[in-house]
Amino acid sequence: MLQFITSGESHGKGLTVIINGLPSNLKIDLDFINNELKRRQHGYGRGLRMKIESDQVEILSGVRFGKTLGSPVTLFIKNSDWDNWTEKMSYTDIDKKPDKVTIPRPGHADLVGSIKYDYNDIRNSIERSSARETAARVAACSVAKLYLNEFGIKVQSFVESIGGIYPKNNYYNELLSNTIPKSINKINEIADKSQVRVFDSDHETKIINRIKKIKKLGDTLGGTFVVVVSGVPVGLGTFTHFEDKLDAEIAQSIMSINAIKGVEIGIGFQAANIPGSEVHDEIYLKNKNIIRKTNRAGGIEGGISNGSPIIIRAAMKPIATLMNPLHSIDLATQKNIVSRRERSDFVAVPACAVIAESMAAWSISKYFQRKFGGDSIKEALANFENYNKSYMTNLRDNFRL
Amino acid sequence: MLQFITSGESHGKGLTVIINGLPSNLKIDLDFINNELKRRQHGYGRGLRMKIESDQVEILSGVRFGKTLGSPVTLFIKNSDWDNWTEKMSYTDIDKKPDKVTIPRPGHADLVGSIKYDYNDIRNSIERSSARETAARVAACSVAKLYLNEFGIKVQSFVESIGGIYPKNNYYNELLSNTIPKSINKINEIADKSQVRVFDSDHETKIINRIKKIKKLGDTLGGTFVVVVSGVPVGLGTFTHFEDKLDAEIAQSIMSINAIKGVEIGIGFQAANIPGSEVHDEIYLKNKNIIRKTNRAGGIEGGISNGSPIIIRAAMKPIATLMNPLHSIDLATQKNIVSRRERSDFVAVPACAVIAESMAAWSISKYFQRKFGGDSIKEALANFENYNKSYMTNLRDNFRL
Amino acid sequence: MLQFITSGESHGKGLTVIINGLPSNLKIDLDFINNELKRRQHGYGRGLRMKIESDQVEILSGVRFGKTLGSPVTLFIKNSDWDNWTEKMSYTDIDKKPDKVTIPRPGHADLVGSIKYDYNDIRNSIERSSARETAARVAACSVAKLYLNEFGIKVQSFVESIGGIYPKNNYYNELLSNTIPKSINKINEIADKSQVRVFDSDHETKIINRIKKIKKLGDTLGGTFVVVVSGVPVGLGTFTHFEDKLDAEIAQSIMSINAIKGVEIGIGFQAANIPGSEVHDEIYLKNKNIIRKTNRAGGIEGGISNGSPIIIRAAMKPIATLMNPLHSIDLATQKNIVSRRERSDFVAVPACAVIAESMAAWSISKYFQRKFGGDSIKEALANFENYNKSYMTNLRDNFRL
Amino acid sequence: MLQFITSGESHGKGLTVIINGLPSNLKIDLDFINNELKRRQHGYGRGLRMKIESDQVEILSGVRFGKTLGSPVTLFIKNSDWDNWTEKMSYTDIDKKPDKVTIPRPGHADLVGSIKYDYNDIRNSIERSSARETAARVAACSVAKLYLNEFGIKVQSFVESIGGIYPKNNYYNELLSNTIPKSINKINEIADKSQVRVFDSDHETKIINRIKKIKKLGDTLGGTFVVVVSGVPVGLGTFTHFEDKLDAEIAQSIMSINAIKGVEIGIGFQAANIPGSEVHDEIYLKNKNIIRKTNRAGGIEGGISNGSPIIIRAAMKPIATLMNPLHSIDLATQKNIVSRRERSDFVAVPACAVIAESMAAWSISKYFQRKFGGDSIKEALANFENYNKSYMTNLRDNFRL
Repeated sequence: MLQFITSGESHGKGLTVIINGLPSNLKIDLDFINNELKRRQHGYGRGLRMKIESDQVEILSGVRFGKTLGSPVTLFIKNSDWDNWTEKMSYTDIDKKPDKVTIPRPGHADLVGSIKYDYNDIRNSIERSSARETAARVAACSVAKLYLNEFGIKVQSFVESIGGIYPKNNYYNELLSNTIPKSINKINEIADKSQVRVFDSDHETKIINRIKKIKKLGDTLGGTFVVVVSGVPVGLGTFTHFEDKLDAEIAQSIMSINAIKGVEIGIGFQAANIPGSEVHDEIYLKNKNIIRKTNRAGGIEGGISNGSPIIIRAAMKPIATLMNPLHSIDLATQKNIVSRRERSDFVAVPACAVIAESMAAWSISKYFQRKFGGDSIKEALANFENYNKSYMTNLRDNFRL
Repeated sequence: MLQFITSGESHGKGLTVIINGLPSNLKIDLDFINNELKRRQHGYGRGLRMKIESDQVEILSGVRFGKTLGSPVTLFIKNSDWDNWTEKMSYTDIDKKPDKVTIPRPGHADLVGSIKYDYNDIRNSIERSSARETAARVAACSVAKLYLNEFGIKVQSFVESIGGIYPKNNYYNELLSNTIPKSINKINEIADKSQVRVFDSDHETKIINRIKKIKKLGDTLGGTFVVVVSGVPVGLGTFTHFEDKLDAEIAQSIMSINAIKGVEIGIGFQAANIPGSEVHDEIYLKNKNIIRKTNRAGGIEGGISNGSPIIIRAAMKPIATLMNPLHSIDLATQKNIVSRRERSDFVAVPACAVIAESMAAWSISKYFQRKFGGDSIKEALANFENYNKSYMTNLRDNFRL
Repeated sequence: MLQFITSGESHGKGLTVIINGLPSNLKIDLDFINNELKRRQHGYGRGLRMKIESDQVEILSGVRFGKTLGSPVTLFIKNSDWDNWTEKMSYTDIDKKPDKVTIPRPGHADLVGSIKYDYNDIRNSIERSSARETAARVAACSVAKLYLNEFGIKVQSFVESIGGIYPKNNYYNELLSNTIPKSINKINEIADKSQVRVFDSDHETKIINRIKKIKKLGDTLGGTFVVVVSGVPVGLGTFTHFEDKLDAEIAQSIMSINAIKGVEIGIGFQAANIPGSEVHDEIYLKNKNIIRKTNRAGGIEGGISNGSPIIIRAAMKPIATLMNPLHSIDLATQKNIVSRRERSDFVAVPACAVIAESMAAWSISKYFQRKFGGDSIKEALANFENYNKSYMTNLRDNFRL
Repeated sequence: MLQFITSGESHGKGLTVIINGLPSNLKIDLDFINNELKRRQHGYGRGLRMKIESDQVEILSGVRFGKTLGSPVTLFIKNSDWDNWTEKMSYTDIDKKPDKVTIPRPGHADLVGSIKYDYNDIRNSIERSSARETAARVAACSVAKLYLNEFGIKVQSFVESIGGIYPKNNYYNELLSNTIPKSINKINEIADKSQVRVFDSDHETKIINRIKKIKKLGDTLGGTFVVVVSGVPVGLGTFTHFEDKLDAEIAQSIMSINAIKGVEIGIGFQAANIPGSEVHDEIYLKNKNIIRKTNRAGGIEGGISNGSPIIIRAAMKPIATLMNPLHSIDLATQKNIVSRRERSDFVAVPACAVIAESMAAWSISKYFQRKFGGDSIKEALANFENYNKSYMTNLRDNFRL
C-alpha cells in the first residue's frame, strides 16, 4: 500500500524520501517534480534561504527509462549549502563542537523537542521540525499527482487571505455554490502568476503592502488557503470504519503540515451557523445523470467522495521566528531573556498552499489505490474505467421497480 | 498497540466494539461507561429515538473481577428496539423483503454508499453511516478515559454555539489566554447541567429558543464546541514523521465524527488573521519552572504536546434529515422528487461534543501508550512517573554551561 | 483493508470476532461457517470439552438478507458452558473469589503471561492463551473462504503425521512433484472422512494405535500437516518490500497458531539438502501456455504467487497439558512441585490443520484484495477477470521482438 | 514505531534505507555497521560480485555527532559498479535501449514479476528481487543491533549445514538441551572465523569439498542455519492478538529473506515426532529464581519471550541461477529453451545466516520498543530496568498466600 517516509535534517546533506507501493509503468516527469519544488519555494515574503535552496530532485531508485518499476522510488534533494554545515551538522562525533542553541523560540518545537528527546542542543529540535522537511513531501506528492493525472484527477490551490486581508470576490464562495465553477481548471494557472498566489491583482497589492508593513515591525503573518481536487470518482473512503473516512484522512494529512491550526471540508465552520436547508446539497436528475447544483459538502458525504470537487480550506499561523523576538528563557543560564532570531521567512502562506495541494494529492492517491488496486498503471486504469462505466447502470438495475 | 473496531448497524441486534491493546489491571467502572453513553444521548433537540435507546453496555470479554486482563475488551450495546426490526434487518435471506428506501437524502451517505457498495436499497447505506455507530465509540473511549484517568489526564467539553448563537463571554477565549483558566476542572460538571451543554443560562435560553423556531420550520441546526484535555504530559507526538504528529492525529479522529466539517487546534483560523507576536505563547521561568501565560497553541507545538491543556474546537453541520425535506430523486422511478423524512434529531451538537471528547481521549491514549509502553497499569505508571520526575533535571543537566 | 480481531476468554460468555474490510454482496452461508467450526472440533484424541462446545455462530452485524453490507461483520460463538463459569469468570468484582491457579504448566503461557501482565492468578493467562481462541479465527476465516470461493480459490488440508507416524505414500510428495496432482480437488473430502484427517486407512489405524498408547502413558503428541491453496492467480505478494512478501505473510499467520513450531513453503527444509537442479521448477511452453511440471517452490517465487498450488507444511508440538504432569513450581508457596493437570486434548493435529487452512485463507484474501481492490463482489470480480484475461496477452505484446 | 523501508535496484546508483522510530541518543558506530555489511559478503562459494561490492555505508540523516536524533536515519550504500550500468539502468528515458532479458530463470521472480508488473524486460524483475536488497536490510538492522546492545541483548548465528552436510556434534542440540549452553557468548566469534560459518574445522572441510564439486557440475547448494538471541527479557510479544505473537513476527521476518523456505522456533519440526514429556521445558526454582534446564521451546511460550535464548532455525534453498542452466522459455520468441546464466554465487548460506541475524534483531527491537517505549535511550533504559527490577517481586507479591 502507498506510503512514504521522508528523512533529512534542515542543514544536513539533503532530504530523502522513499515512496513505497506505487504501480509500475507510471511516467516520471522530472521537470514536473522540479517545478513543483519551485512552486513550493515561490512567494513574496520568503527569507533568504529560498535563494540558496533552488531544489532539484535526484532519483535514486524505483525508476528505469522514465517509468516506475513498482519498487520503492527514492528521491534525494541535495542541500546546496551543506559545505557550510559539515562541521555543525557532522554525522560523526567531533572534538570541537559548535556553540549550542539554548534559547527556545515560542511556537516552535524547540523546547518540547529538547524535553522529549533528551537533547543538549536546541539545534537538534530545529533541524527536523523545520518546514524544510516539506520539500521532500512535495517531491513525493508530485509523484502522487502524476499518478492521479493518469485518471484525470487534478489537485490545485490558491491563497484566500494573508494577515486578515480577504478578497472582495472570494473564489472560495464560487466553489461552494457551484459544482462546476468557472476557472476550476485554471486555478493553479491563475494563482501561480501571482506573487502571493491570489486570484486578483487588487487583492495581491493589498496583501503585499500588508507584508511590507509587518516586515518593518519585525513581525510575521499567516493566512488561509483553499485546495481543490477535481475529477475525483464517486466512492473513495467509507463510513464503515472511522479510521477510513476520506475527510478524516484529509484532515490528518493537512493538519500534519507545519503551522497549520485549522482544517475545513467544504463550507466548514460556516455550517455551524446556518440552517440545514442552506447547507446540504440537493440532488437532481438531469439528462439521466445525477447532479448537484451546490457543493457546500466539499465533495464528501458520509466520509465518501461524491464526485463533486473536493474543497479543503486551512489556516496557517504566522511564522514563529520573529525579527522582533518574543519572550523566552535561556536553558544554559536558566534565566528569562528575549528569544533569539534565526534566518526565516516573514510569510509562507503561498508555499504552504502548495504543500497542502501535495498532501491532498497524497491522501486521494492512497484512497484511490485502496479502491482500485492494480500493480501496473494499465491494470489500475482498466479497473477504474470498468467501475466508471458500470456504476450508473448498476444503480439503475439495482433500484429498478 | 491500542486500536478499536466498532461494528453494528443502526437497527441491528446491537453495536459491538473490540478494544485491543489495553494494559492489564485497569479498573473498569461500568457505571462510568454507562454514564458516558447517557451523556451522549442527552441534549435538547434530540428526536424520539433517544428515548428508545437508553444505552447500556454489556462486557463480553477482556475483563475479570472488574479489571482488564490485557486481552481484547469487547463491549456490546443491545438495540432495545430490535424486536421491531428483526424482519427488516434479517441477517438471513427472507422471501418477502420489506419495501426498499429509494430516495437519497442530501448530506447523507445514502447515494454515495449505494453507488460504492452496489446496494439495491438505501437502507443499507443508512444503517452503518448513521451516527448511531458513535455510541460504540463512546463506549470504547470511556475505557480510554479510565486509562487516562490513571495518569491524571482529564478530557472535557462544552458547546460554544448552536445555530450561530455564541455566548457573550466565551469560555473558549479564556482557554486561549490562560494556561490555567478558572473552572478548567469543572467544565463537564458545568456543561452537563445545561440542556445544551453551554456555560451560562442566558446563552442556554437563547439557544433553546432558536431550536424551537427551527423545529417549527422543519429545519435543523449545527454548532461549534470545544474539547479540553488537561494534565497531558510534555512529549506526546512528534515532528519526526508527518503521520505521527499529535495535532494531525487529533484532526483525523475529530473529523471522523459524523457531520463534522472543521477542526481547529488552539486559536485555529484566528491565527491566520493576526501577527505572529499575538499568536505564539511566550516562555517564562517562574520558580525554576518553565511556564506559559497564554495557550493559543492549544497545547501542541511542532506536533508535540507542550504540557498546556490541549484545546480542540470543531464545527458540526446541521442534521441532514429535515422534516421539511430538500430536493432529491427517486432511484426507483428515476424522477425528481422531494427527499424523504426519517425519524431524526433537530440538533445534536451537545451529543457531538461528548463524542468528540471521546475521540480526543482515544487519540491521547494511543500516543500516551506509544511513548510510555507498559503491559500493566503498574508498569505504565512507573514509566510515566520516572519520566515526569526526571525530564526537568535532564534538561538542566544537558544545557548547563 | 481486510483485518479481523478476535476477543473472548476460553470460559467467558463467548468468543467475538469483528471482520473489517469485506466487500459488499458476499453471500454468507451460515451452514458453511458452522461446518467449519465443526471440522475444527473434529478428530480422534480430543478431550471432553469438544463435546461441550459444538460451536454455533451468531451474526451480530454486517450482514443483511444473507449478504455482506461492506460494514464490519461480527460473529459471536456462545460458550455453552458459561453457566458453570459465571462466578469464576465474573466480569465485575465479587467478594468471594475462586481459588487461584498458582502452578504454571511448562510449554504454556501460564508463567510468561503472569509476569508480563502482572497477574495474581494463572487463570488469567490460561483464558486467552488457550487454543479456544482459534474457534473465532476459524469463524472469521470461513468468511474469507467464501470470499475466495467467488474467485475459484480453494483452501484444503490434510494431516501428514502424528507422533512421528508418516504414511507410506506421502501425498505431500505428490504435491511437490506435480502441479496438478490427482485428488487435488478432493483433499478435504478425503481427509474429513478420516478420524485423524489422513489419506489412507492403514495410516489412520497406525496413528490411532499410537494415540491410544500415549493416552495410557498420560502423555501427548504433535504432528505435521499440509495446507494446499489451489486456484491462486499469478501475482499476489511482491518482492519490492520485505513486509509484503506472500511467503512471509503466510509464515506469520501459520506460526501465529497455538503450538506451531515450524513452517515451510513447498519443499521447505528438504531444499537445504539437495542441489539447485533438483529444487527449482523448470518452465515450459505448452500449447502457448506457460507451465511447470513440478511445484517444489510451493507456488511462490520471489515472494509472489506463481499460479501453481500454494503448499504449506507445518509442525505442531504436542499438547502442553499432560495427565502425567511435568515438573513445575507453585508460585503461592514458592516451592518445587509437579505441574497441575487441566482438562485437555491428547492430540489436536487434525483440528490444527483446519485452523491452518483458515489462516492461509485469510492471508490469501488479504493479498488478493490488495491487488484487486473492489468494494463489492461485482467490482472485485470484474477486476479479477480483466487481469486474468489480459496478462498473457500483455506479456506477449511486451516481449514481442 | 519502529519501521524501515529499503529501496534501490541491484545495479542502480545504490541502496537506500530509512529507519523510522529510533530513540534519540543511540550511539551509531559506523565501523560496526560496515563490519556487518562485510560479514554479509563473506563466505566460501560467493560469486564475483562480492569483490566488486565491498559495501560501505554513508549516513544521510538522523545522526549528529555520532548519536541518533530521534528523526529518521537514512543509510546509503553506493553501487561501486554504477559507472558500468548508467545506460542499462538509466533513470530517464533513452533512445537506444539495451538488449532485453527475455528468458526467465526458474526459482527466481523473473516470470512472476514480469506478469504482475506488466514489464517488457525481465531485467526489471531481476533488479529488485535480487538478494542485493538485503545489504540495505543488514545496514538497517545493524542499527537495531546497536539498540539491543544497550539492553544487553545479543544476536548471533552459525551455519548448521550446507548441501546436506551436517556436523557430528551439532551445536543446535546443545542450544535446545541447555538454557546456558557453553560458547553462547562466542557464537559469532567462532563462526566468523570459518569460511562457511560453521563450528568445527572438520565440518568446514567437508562442506568446502562439497561446494567445490557442485561448482564443477555448474549446480548450486543451500543449507540450514541457526540464529540465537540471548539476553531477551521475559515478556516480549503476546497471546492476546494473533498478529502480535513474537514467534509469528519472527517467522515473517525470517521468511521474508530471499530463498528461505522454512523457519522453526526452538525444536521446530522435531516436536512433531516425540511425546510432550520430551518437548516442554520443565520449570524449577533454584535460589529463589525460576529457571529452565532445557530450551526446546526456543525461548518463546504462548507467543511471548520466556527469558531463555531465542532459537531460530531456517532453511535456505540453493541459489536459483545455475551455470548449467535449467529448462525455460524465451518470452520474445515464445519458444522452449534452456535458461540463461547470470553472474551469481554458488552458495550463500553463510551470508544468509547474517541476514537472518539482522532480521531477528529487527523483530526483537520492534517488540522491545512496543513494550518499553521511550523516546531517548535514557528513558528506554529506565523503563527496562524498572521492569527487570520489579517483576519477580510483583510475581511473589501477587501470588503470596
